[in-house]
Amino acid sequence: MNIAVYGAGAMGRLVAEGLIEDDRFNFVGMIDKKASGELVYESLESIPQDIEGIIDFSHPSNLEELLTFVKLKEIPLLIATTGFTDEEIGRIEEAAKEAPIIFSYNTSLGVNLLGELVKQMAGALGEGFDIEIIEKHHNKKLDSPSGTAKFLLDRVVEGHPEKLSPVYGREGMARRERTEVGVHAVRGGSIVGEHSVIFAGEDEIVEIKHEALSKKIFVRGALKGIYFLRDMGNNLYTMKDVLGL
Amino acid sequence: MNIAVYGAGAMGRLVAEGLIEDDRFNFVGMIDKKASGELVYESLESIPQDIEGIIDFSHPSNLEELLTFVKLKEIPLLIATTGFTDEEIGRIEEAAKEAPIIFSYNTSLGVNLLGELVKQMAGALGEGFDIEIIEKHHNKKLDSPSGTAKFLLDRVVEGHPEKLSPVYGREGMARRERTEVGVHAVRGGSIVGEHSVIFAGEDEIVEIKHEALSKKIFVRGALKGIYFLRDMGNNLYTMKDVLGL
Amino acid sequence: MNIAVYGAGAMGRLVAEGLIEDDRFNFVGMIDKKASGELVYESLESIPQDIEGIIDFSHPSNLEELLTFVKLKEIPLLIATTGFTDEEIGRIEEAAKEAPIIFSYNTSLGVNLLGELVKQMAGALGEGFDIEIIEKHHNKKLDSPSGTAKFLLDRVVEGHPEKLSPVYGREGMARRERTEVGVHAVRGGSIVGEHSVIFAGEDEIVEIKHEALSKKIFVRGALKGIYFLRDMGNNLYTMKDVLGL
Amino acid sequence: MNIAVYGAGAMGRLVAEGLIEDDRFNFVGMIDKKASGELVYESLESIPQDIEGIIDFSHPSNLEELLTFVKLKEIPLLIATTGFTDEEIGRIEEAAKEAPIIFSYNTSLGVNLLGELVKQMAGALGEGFDIEIIEKHHNKKLDSPSGTAKFLLDRVVEGHPEKLSPVYGREGMARRERTEVGVHAVRGGSIVGEHSVIFAGEDEIVEIKHEALSKKIFVRGALKGIYFLRDMGNNLYTMKDVLGL
Repeated sequence: MNIAVYGAGAMGRLVAEGLIEDDRFNFVGMIDKKASGELVYESLESIPQDIEGIIDFSHPSNLEELLTFVKLKEIPLLIATTGFTDEEIGRIEEAAKEAPIIFSYNTSLGVNLLGELVKQMAGALGEGFDIEIIEKHHNKKLDSPSGTAKFLLDRVVEGHPEKLSPVYGREGMARRERTEVGVHAVRGGSIVGEHSVIFAGEDEIVEIKHEALSKKIFVRGALKGIYFLRDMGNNLYTMKDVLGL
Repeated sequence: MNIAVYGAGAMGRLVAEGLIEDDRFNFVGMIDKKASGELVYESLESIPQDIEGIIDFSHPSNLEELLTFVKLKEIPLLIATTGFTDEEIGRIEEAAKEAPIIFSYNTSLGVNLLGELVKQMAGALGEGFDIEIIEKHHNKKLDSPSGTAKFLLDRVVEGHPEKLSPVYGREGMARRERTEVGVHAVRGGSIVGEHSVIFAGEDEIVEIKHEALSKKIFVRGALKGIYFLRDMGNNLYTMKDVLGL
Repeated sequence: MNIAVYGAGAMGRLVAEGLIEDDRFNFVGMIDKKASGELVYESLESIPQDIEGIIDFSHPSNLEELLTFVKLKEIPLLIATTGFTDEEIGRIEEAAKEAPIIFSYNTSLGVNLLGELVKQMAGALGEGFDIEIIEKHHNKKLDSPSGTAKFLLDRVVEGHPEKLSPVYGREGMARRERTEVGVHAVRGGSIVGEHSVIFAGEDEIVEIKHEALSKKIFVRGALKGIYFLRDMGNNLYTMKDVLGL
Repeated sequence: MNIAVYGAGAMGRLVAEGLIEDDRFNFVGMIDKKASGELVYESLESIPQDIEGIIDFSHPSNLEELLTFVKLKEIPLLIATTGFTDEEIGRIEEAAKEAPIIFSYNTSLGVNLLGELVKQMAGALGEGFDIEIIEKHHNKKLDSPSGTAKFLLDRVVEGHPEKLSPVYGREGMARRERTEVGVHAVRGGSIVGEHSVIFAGEDEIVEIKHEALSKKIFVRGALKGIYFLRDMGNNLYTMKDVLGL
């Protein structure tokens, strides 16, 4: 499967490496208007080989070119870029009528699986269990809590029978509200990323945890995603579909 | 809901206490041929109040009496007794055509939830992830691994695309086989019971863990189970149905 | 060793039970001005048997009677009562010249051991490691963080080469300061008490964790403490001495 | 401080990188009889710059050259090579009378700290606590348990008041012996290395855990070690001395 990578940043280059090492794929080039180098092109059109799928880790400004190209060629597209406006997301949904597209902020298999599972857990365990989220990252991370922690919180809220609301730390005298979700951001050393969702009930605790050891997990999920699309009809898919959940 | 408890052992008494504390229920008596005391009866027939449901934590030898009674009255029955033969299990299945019955070796909500989730995880993560189980119990436990660890292993095997086989410890020089599942029994102090299933892939690890703080978790699940049955038609149900999974 | 317990509250009664079950001890009575019952007395003087040691889980208002008695009899005293003023603590120190005394807010062996170890760890790992504390308690606990978390924080601060300051949660955009210590209070279900201190460095993490399963751990430590004192000269001791650290 | 690295293998090259990035050091060359390249020399004598310290990650066969050189120049030597005979270890001890030497199979600060702490813990908690070790490594590791797990077990045995003996897995019916230490080797995915020592007592559990995220932790410890030696007299030191424990 001939794959082009849109965006020659750190993630784009990791995806290119991943494609080269994987027998299922043939890496045909990266597209980046600001970068140069071997197999780096200015536009999708300038890649000499046939493109059978595109993985996008670039910037919302490239959306128009991407969507036009995949609609024209009817080839799969995996968008892992972040920062789209609602209007742009609408255009992605529209384009998915004419090409198979996955749109995901986080392509890690494990994190997407966790999202599905915590939603189920929140539904099944429901009112009798208190939910708390702990995430751990390196000491250089600027935002707290992490985007992935917010994603997991959203899934928990989605699955739970009651209306939940987050609290970001506790100090002083105050009893826990039954519908609050504590979200705790631990920062230290060079921790790549760990997310844990705790369901604490009377006399039993269920905890589910994801630990990332490197950014390659996003590559692995992206490759699994674009490969999944090769046989699919035009539609908008998620990593949940890739996982078969 | 008027509930009788079959079996006046440790678990039966905990269930009776749980029923008394719970507004949804009215505890009408325990049945135990070998025990005596307040509200302990020799047979289901000798309980003066109407029985609207039965929870059984006794012995396979009481099965005939139980099944005859619930079929006659068409009332719910939750069986949490262990040690049935295949023939006896067949009779439970047969009786479930004439009364709503739950049959479960472990009525803890958390453990049953874990069973469902690890099956899904084994299916979704599949070949790229190695699976290991760690269980921890007090230093007086005789059997290793625990029955719950075996239950979780069975769920993993059920969900996984490949044929897996367990190993119970590692020593010496030998590389892990891709389809082996390490099952590790930790014993120490007064640990009530902890079970963890680890899915370790390239650069990411997903772990799901259940921790029991007391045997009351079996009571809670049993009460939730019998209450679930009050509105259900005649059939054989599991704790998975109770959890809505 | 004939032991009296000062205070017939929940902890005092647990200590009495512990003494009765332990062959090394002979429980001679509890002292409580507000309680009554078998073996409950109004004062130390009214206990008929010889007292060879006293464990105090009562109230600062009993301090004078306790200190006068142990100085007179030259017998060991373990004080586990909380809420003393500095002046009262001074009187305890003074009395320890005439009787062997242990004064400790938390008599758990494990927690006191943790206190010593995290102090050492903070000193040995020092500047290159970021320190974070996570504590977990049941959903009815009023104060955050727990007293034990504050005790552990104090030990970390004591051992560390730099001046550290705590933060109690993180939300928004802000990079971790090198000398901050995140203290995270998780609340949920019926968790008895768990404390974890994390030292996260470049590419390695050291974590030490204490998990309490019941309040009996305070009893066990108190018994070990009073037994330790039986052979010791007049002086003020801590649980650290009992642990032989 | 001008440092030479003996051995141009994977670890030697990581150490060279570490020296170059660290302002305290000046990297003057690697010695490797089988390798070549920039700043790779055939012998210590052929390095043109003054050598003020040597880090050895090579092979026992280079021991004679190393010891002769550091005795002559009276400069610090850190030996992190493995596989020495008792006779060779004797020669290292002898040479340490004429030069400051650290000899350590594992130069990670965290692992050495853990070794000290678990020894203390085994001594302080003693008979009332059951000890179990869990280690986790990637699925390509050949030996079980890991060398570091054995090192930790040795420290536990050293510190404990009773004679302990390891068991490497549990299956079937058998109650835990009070003096056995369960050692559990988990294998999966690309886990770099995790070691956990659990002390499980009545109603409380203390656990200490080390997690390695990359092999750079051995570099960091080696640099800290050789820097520590710069002011020390001739003697044999360990990483414990470097940690100030």
